[in-house]
Amino acid sequence: MSSEPTRTFQAVEVIRTKRDGGELSDDQIDWLIAAYTAGQIAEEQMSALAMAIFFRGLSRAELSRWTRAMINSGERLDFSSLSRPTADKHSTGGVGDKITLPLVPLVAACGVAVPQLSGRGLGHTGGTLDKLESIPGWRASLSNEQMLAQLESIGAVICAAGSGLAPADRLLYAMRDVTATVESIPLIASSIMSKKIAEGTGALVLDVKVGSGAFMKSVASAQELASTMVELGRDAGLRTIALLTDMSTPLGLTAGNALEVRESVEVLAGGGPTDVVELTVVLAREMLAAAGHEGPDPAEVLASGQAMDVWRAMITAQGGDPDAVLPTARETEVITADQDGTVASLDALAVGVSAWRLGAGRGRKEDVVQAGAGVQLHVKPGDQVRVGQPLATLHTDTSERFVPAVEALRDAWTFADGPVARRPLVIDRIG
Amino acid sequence: MSSEPTRTFQAVEVIRTKRDGGELSDDQIDWLIAAYTAGQIAEEQMSALAMAIFFRGLSRAELSRWTRAMINSGERLDFSSLSRPTADKHSTGGVGDKITLPLVPLVAACGVAVPQLSGRGLGHTGGTLDKLESIPGWRASLSNEQMLAQLESIGAVICAAGSGLAPADRLLYAMRDVTATVESIPLIASSIMSKKIAEGTGALVLDVKVGSGAFMKSVASAQELASTMVELGRDAGLRTIALLTDMSTPLGLTAGNALEVRESVEVLAGGGPTDVVELTVVLAREMLAAAGHEGPDPAEVLASGQAMDVWRAMITAQGGDPDAVLPTARETEVITADQDGTVASLDALAVGVSAWRLGAGRGRKEDVVQAGAGVQLHVKPGDQVRVGQPLATLHTDTSERFVPAVEALRDAWTFADGPVARRPLVIDRIG
Repeated sequence: MSSEPTRTFQAVEVIRTKRDGGELSDDQIDWLIAAYTAGQIAEEQMSALAMAIFFRGLSRAELSRWTRAMINSGERLDFSSLSRPTADKHSTGGVGDKITLPLVPLVAACGVAVPQLSGRGLGHTGGTLDKLESIPGWRASLSNEQMLAQLESIGAVICAAGSGLAPADRLLYAMRDVTATVESIPLIASSIMSKKIAEGTGALVLDVKVGSGAFMKSVASAQELASTMVELGRDAGLRTIALLTDMSTPLGLTAGNALEVRESVEVLAGGGPTDVVELTVVLAREMLAAAGHEGPDPAEVLASGQAMDVWRAMITAQGGDPDAVLPTARETEVITADQDGTVASLDALAVGVSAWRLGAGRGRKEDVVQAGAGVQLHVKPGDQVRVGQPLATLHTDTSERFVPAVEALRDAWTFADGPVARRPLVIDRIG
Repeated sequence: MSSEPTRTFQAVEVIRTKRDGGELSDDQIDWLIAAYTAGQIAEEQMSALAMAIFFRGLSRAELSRWTRAMINSGERLDFSSLSRPTADKHSTGGVGDKITLPLVPLVAACGVAVPQLSGRGLGHTGGTLDKLESIPGWRASLSNEQMLAQLESIGAVICAAGSGLAPADRLLYAMRDVTATVESIPLIASSIMSKKIAEGTGALVLDVKVGSGAFMKSVASAQELASTMVELGRDAGLRTIALLTDMSTPLGLTAGNALEVRESVEVLAGGGPTDVVELTVVLAREMLAAAGHEGPDPAEVLASGQAMDVWRAMITAQGGDPDAVLPTARETEVITADQDGTVASLDALAVGVSAWRLGAGRGRKEDVVQAGAGVQLHVKPGDQVRVGQPLATLHTDTSERFVPAVEALRDAWTFADGPVARRPLVIDRIG
C-alpha cells in the first residue's frame, strides 16, 4: 500500500516554506507524512507546521497531495468485488444526529451497499458507535473480511474504523487536539476525506452541519469546508456531494445513546420526528444518486418496512439483539416552562452540553459513556407551550449530574408571542 | 528567583487565545513559562504557540511579562556590591564581529565593570567564547563568586552564561531552532533581554547588526528589533540603548577564532583595522554614558595601552596565557583577483559561510571548531586591486574544506571602475 518517498528533506525547511507562504512540493508532502507516520518527525515540528497551515492554508494541489499521502500511510479497502454499488455518508457531527442509524439500512434496502466506518464521540456531539453499543450484544469491531461478507449478504455495515486506515490521521488528530490546530479547514477536510477515501466507498455524501451545535458555526465556513471536501473527493475519483444542514437546534427529540437508538427505530417503523425522517430520506436520495442507482423512492421503502428488516439483520449480524429492551437511566428530572408562548429557538449546543454532562458523552477519550443518559425533548421550535408544561426530561444514572446539566440548559429555549417559522433543514447543496 | 504562579490554565486554551489574536493575561504567561520550565507543557504545545506568536506577535505588555517570566524561571545575578558601575554590550551577531574582545577591557580600563556573559557560535556567525578558547589555557566557565571577584579586581569578565540564568530561554531556543520559529521579533527580543537582564548589568548597549551577514537583513526589521529590546530593557529598569551597525561586509579583516583574537590584540596594541577600532570606541562611549560614568575618552585610553593591561589581566585570571603563540591552521590557500578595479562590495554572508566551512564554526551544537581556521581578508570595499593580487587567504586544518569554502566566496567581491564610497558603520541609534 504505502509507497516509499523518493527524497528526504529537513522538517525545519518544510515548516519555514509553509510559514512564509510558499507551496510545499509533492515530494516534500509525501516525505513529511511518511516520516511522521514512521515516528521520524518530532511532534513539535508537526504542530508548528499545523499552526503555519492554520494561518497560511494549503493550496488545492497541496491539499490533494496531503490527503493522498495520508491515505498511502495505511491500507485501502476495496469493495469492487461486491455485486452492488456502494455509497457512504459522513456527518461533521451535531446534537441528536442519529441519521446514520436509519439511513444505512434504508439505503441498503434500496439496493446500494453502505460500508459505514464510524467513530466514538468526544465532547458535546455523540458518536454513532456509542449509540449502537447501547444495544445489548452489539459489537463495533469487524475484520475486513467480515465487513465484506456482511456488505454482500445484508448490504449494510456500521463498524469501527480499523487502525490500518490512514494511521497518519490518527497521529495528526491527537496532536492537533492538544495544540489548538483542529480548526483549520484544510486539515479538517483531509482528515475526513483521507479516511473516507481509504474506506473504499464508491460514492460519498457529506452532511456538513451548520449552527451552534456544529463545528462550523457559519454558513460561509461550512460552505468552504464542504467545497474543499467535495474537491478532494473528486480529485481522488470519488463521486462526492455535500449538503449543508441546520444544526442550530437538535435533530429529533433525543440526544443520548439509547434514547437515539429508540428514536431511530421509531423512524424505521414508519414514525419518528419529521426532521429526522426528512433528513434520512433526503440523504438516502443523494446517496443513491451518487451511486448511480435507479430504484424505488427511499420514502416508500421506509414506509414499506424493508429498511427495518435490513436494520434487524445488520444488528443481528454484529451480535446485537434487535428485540432487546434498551437500557434506561436510573434517574430522571423534568424541566418545565416558566412562561406561556411559542418556542422560538432551542439551542443545539446547550442540549449537547447538557447530554454530555448527564453522562452521554466523553470529556476524554478514556471516559465511559452511560447508555441510558441524555436529554429527551418535549417541544421544539414552533411548538406552543403553557407555564408548567414539560420542556425536556433529563436522564442519568448519577443524580449529581442534574445540576450542571440543568445549568447548561438555562438559556437553551427562547420564546415568542406569535407564530415562529421553521428553519429549513437543508441550507445548501454543493457538488 | 522564581515565584510560583497563582493560577493554572489549559495550554490549549492559551494557544487558541494567541492564535485568534487575543491578548494573554499576566497569569497565563507566568503559568506558561513556569510550567514549561518544569517540563509540564509538551514541546508540541509550546511550538504551536511559538508559531502563533510568529503570526500574531506579542503586545508590549505581553512581551514585557513574558520576558519577566523567563527571567523568573532562573536565578538573577546582582552586582550592586561592586565598587564601580556596570555596563554590558550585546551584539545580535555578525561576521568578523570580535568587538567584545577589545571592548570589554577598554570599558573596564575607563572605570566601568563589564560582566559579559557570552555564548558559542552556531552557523555562519562566530561565538565570543570560541574565539577566546583559541588562547591556550583560557577557560570560559566561572562560578558566580569567581565572576564577582574578577569584576571587582579587574573590572572585566567574559565567560559562559551559567545554566541557572533564564533556563526557560534555553529550552525555548532549542525548540524554536527545529520548528522554524526563531525568526519572530518578540521571541528574539525576549530571548536576548531575559538573559541580559538576569545577568544583572546596570546598563546595556545593544549592537543590532543589519545586512547580509546579520540575522536582520533590512534596516526596518533591525529597527523594530532594536526598539523592542530597548523598551524591554527600560520596562525592567535597565538603562538600554541600541545602535544599528552595518553588517553588509565583515568587520575587520578576519573571520575565524584565533585569527580574530590576533586582530583584537592588534587593536588593543593601538593598531588594527579602522572599522574595528571605530566601532570599539563608539560602543565604549555608549556603555560609559549608559552607566552614567564621566571619565577619560576611550580612544585615548586605548592609545595609552591601559586597555591592553586589562586584557592581559583578564585572560590571565581565567587561566589563559596572553603571551602564548595562538594556534594556526595547517593549510592555507590564497584567492586572487581575476580583474583590475576597486572593490565595490564584499559580502559578509559569503565570508561567514566560507569561514564556517573551513572549520571555524559549527553546523550542530555538538561540533568542535578549529581554532586556526577562517578567512583572512586582504582587501575591503574601497580598496584598489590588480589582477593576480591576493584577495583573501583561507585557513583550515582539513584541506578538503577548501573547495566548498572557495565556492562560498565565488561571488563575494564585486568591483567598480571608479572610486567607491565607504558605507557608514553606524546606521541608527535608538533609545
